[in-house]
Amino acid sequence: MSKPIYLDYNATTPLAAEALDAMTEALGDAWGNPSSNHAYGHKARAVVDTARAQVAELLGAQPDEIVFTAGGTESDNAAIVGVAEALAERGRHLVISTVEHPAVDLACAYLETRGFSVTRVPVDRRGVVPADEVIGACRNDTTLVSIMHGNNETGSIQPVREIGAAVRGRGIVFHCDAAQSVGKLPTEVDDLNVNLLTVAGHKLYGPKGVGALYIRRDTPFAGFLRGAGHERGLRAGTENVAAIAGLGAACELARKELPQRERHMREVRDRLESNLRRAIPDLVVHGEGAERLPNTCYAAFPGADALETLSHLEGVATGSGAACHSGKSVPSKVLRAMKVPNAVGRCTLRMTVGRGTSPADVDRAADLIAAAVGTARQAAV
Amino acid sequence: MSKPIYLDYNATTPLAAEALDAMTEALGDAWGNPSSNHAYGHKARAVVDTARAQVAELLGAQPDEIVFTAGGTESDNAAIVGVAEALAERGRHLVISTVEHPAVDLACAYLETRGFSVTRVPVDRRGVVPADEVIGACRNDTTLVSIMHGNNETGSIQPVREIGAAVRGRGIVFHCDAAQSVGKLPTEVDDLNVNLLTVAGHKLYGPKGVGALYIRRDTPFAGFLRGAGHERGLRAGTENVAAIAGLGAACELARKELPQRERHMREVRDRLESNLRRAIPDLVVHGEGAERLPNTCYAAFPGADALETLSHLEGVATGSGAACHSGKSVPSKVLRAMKVPNAVGRCTLRMTVGRGTSPADVDRAADLIAAAVGTARQAAV
Repeated sequence: MSKPIYLDYNATTPLAAEALDAMTEALGDAWGNPSSNHAYGHKARAVVDTARAQVAELLGAQPDEIVFTAGGTESDNAAIVGVAEALAERGRHLVISTVEHPAVDLACAYLETRGFSVTRVPVDRRGVVPADEVIGACRNDTTLVSIMHGNNETGSIQPVREIGAAVRGRGIVFHCDAAQSVGKLPTEVDDLNVNLLTVAGHKLYGPKGVGALYIRRDTPFAGFLRGAGHERGLRAGTENVAAIAGLGAACELARKELPQRERHMREVRDRLESNLRRAIPDLVVHGEGAERLPNTCYAAFPGADALETLSHLEGVATGSGAACHSGKSVPSKVLRAMKVPNAVGRCTLRMTVGRGTSPADVDRAADLIAAAVGTARQAAV
Repeated sequence: MSKPIYLDYNATTPLAAEALDAMTEALGDAWGNPSSNHAYGHKARAVVDTARAQVAELLGAQPDEIVFTAGGTESDNAAIVGVAEALAERGRHLVISTVEHPAVDLACAYLETRGFSVTRVPVDRRGVVPADEVIGACRNDTTLVSIMHGNNETGSIQPVREIGAAVRGRGIVFHCDAAQSVGKLPTEVDDLNVNLLTVAGHKLYGPKGVGALYIRRDTPFAGFLRGAGHERGLRAGTENVAAIAGLGAACELARKELPQRERHMREVRDRLESNLRRAIPDLVVHGEGAERLPNTCYAAFPGADALETLSHLEGVATGSGAACHSGKSVPSKVLRAMKVPNAVGRCTLRMTVGRGTSPADVDRAADLIAAAVGTARQAAV
């Protein structure tokens, strides 16, 4: 059996050849502990330094503003908890949106059990949080605002620049979870107006288990992982040298091919979407009308339960906007936050393309998806 | 120039060929997201499942008691904070020793800023914490005791079994940081009497950036990294599939070769130590008289400042028991906790062998170290 067409790039990406090469070299050759003051340690330290410069360059940051982490979840947790605790004397109020990733949302929920309060600003029907409502939710005791760049489900781009400009002017720290947008869109930290920004290696053709947290100089930060003083005391734990090398290589690759990568993904995503619309005219594209990640098609096929559709879809690997709870398909939290009716929400698939997706892939995938939707609709009758 | 002889296995180990193979295969073939419900995800999930069974088997645990983390530091932080917070209603007192790894000690220090109190039980001159003093430090409001297995500097083995038997009988949760002993000594969780146990991949010929936390069933645990519900809700973050595969392979290798690995390391370590003693008769072996990790020789060369010695030691890569602060060599916290005089402490090297160290390596290394010590002693005159 040939491999299914992969349309789940927002879940994870295959490792780029450049990243694999960097990892393989580091695993064989730079296995020392970067903290060791001898030849083996120096070699590992040099690999980490190179990668730090590569990540910084993609983000338009300085190398000493990049802290390596175990991934997007740790970066988000560290940003939220590390800033909130650093500024707890000044205030204990945070502002996020209702569509943040669980790594942001549940870090905030944890702080709520520790005497902090959190305002979750609702999104509109396109899945976009209005900048003025975020800005209006800030109070005198607000210390941190965290708004993602591109949503992982809808792909909807949030008004990060405007929010950053307004809240940073009021002395509030601004964090942005850019796990889904780094490597898909320009994500320069000065352009986005952020104090902190989350990067996840495996969303941009780098390895799993590694990420970065951009921390602008002079940002109050109390730390998160604690131990021996790695990463200038900001993040303890022996550096994951090989994965860091892979992340660095993935960032360099992203920087080099970003304009054409973005254009390519947008072309195949748009082609997929129009193919699907031709086959299923009542298709509902979530986030339509909003600026979206160039690779994301999040769409409902009314009358075709998503999990039922997936059960008939052998040749395409893709995600759904619904999960099975007690035998019933329930729409995702993001779809509910967008006030998508349940009957539509539970028929939603998340189809996400990548740098390796060809026009032929999406043509074939659209045929297979349309056929599976047809079967699922019949099953529902 | 030929490569220096590596005598710094407690800092980190090279990746075993078996672990590298497992990682390479996973990076190429199992790059899906284990949470994805399609062929790519299932393949990745299967790799994680296999590794979980391998780790569990080495520890004599059940697979569902193993949680993968980003390494020893995260495992320690999660154990300390995750248990203390889960039991905060019952009590807010913790007991550790004065020679715990910073990942334990500073997690406790963090909790001290959050209304917890911590008793740090002193060690004896061998670097061993007396079991009865740990047990005696427990109070009615003690919820957690954390004592390491083998100390990372001295190699001294702590009386984990006795402490576990006594405190667990009193309803106190017992965590053991076994980062340095897993793969060097038997570390079965029932034998060690622990509720939680920390494993660090890169200390046992597995990759950096991955570890495990053994959590015995029914142990109260509030979690640490928060986000999407990976690892049965106990640790969020997309699984680091390739590194997990590498850790699993390293654990299987350790299980297979543990008796001969332990014997081999003990032989070359003892040979190194007697070579050194012959050349430098006033050598002081820290932890002498205690049961020690079979690979660790932590020894002072009185009159030869450690950093001075290392500066003359080209052909051997090893660590020191002193660090440079404001231009002066200061003995490590562990040496100070053992009440080693400063003049001795600052002359300490940490020489740690591994499965790849040969008798010829340690013979040559002892010659080079003795020569460097001689040069350092002359420099001090």
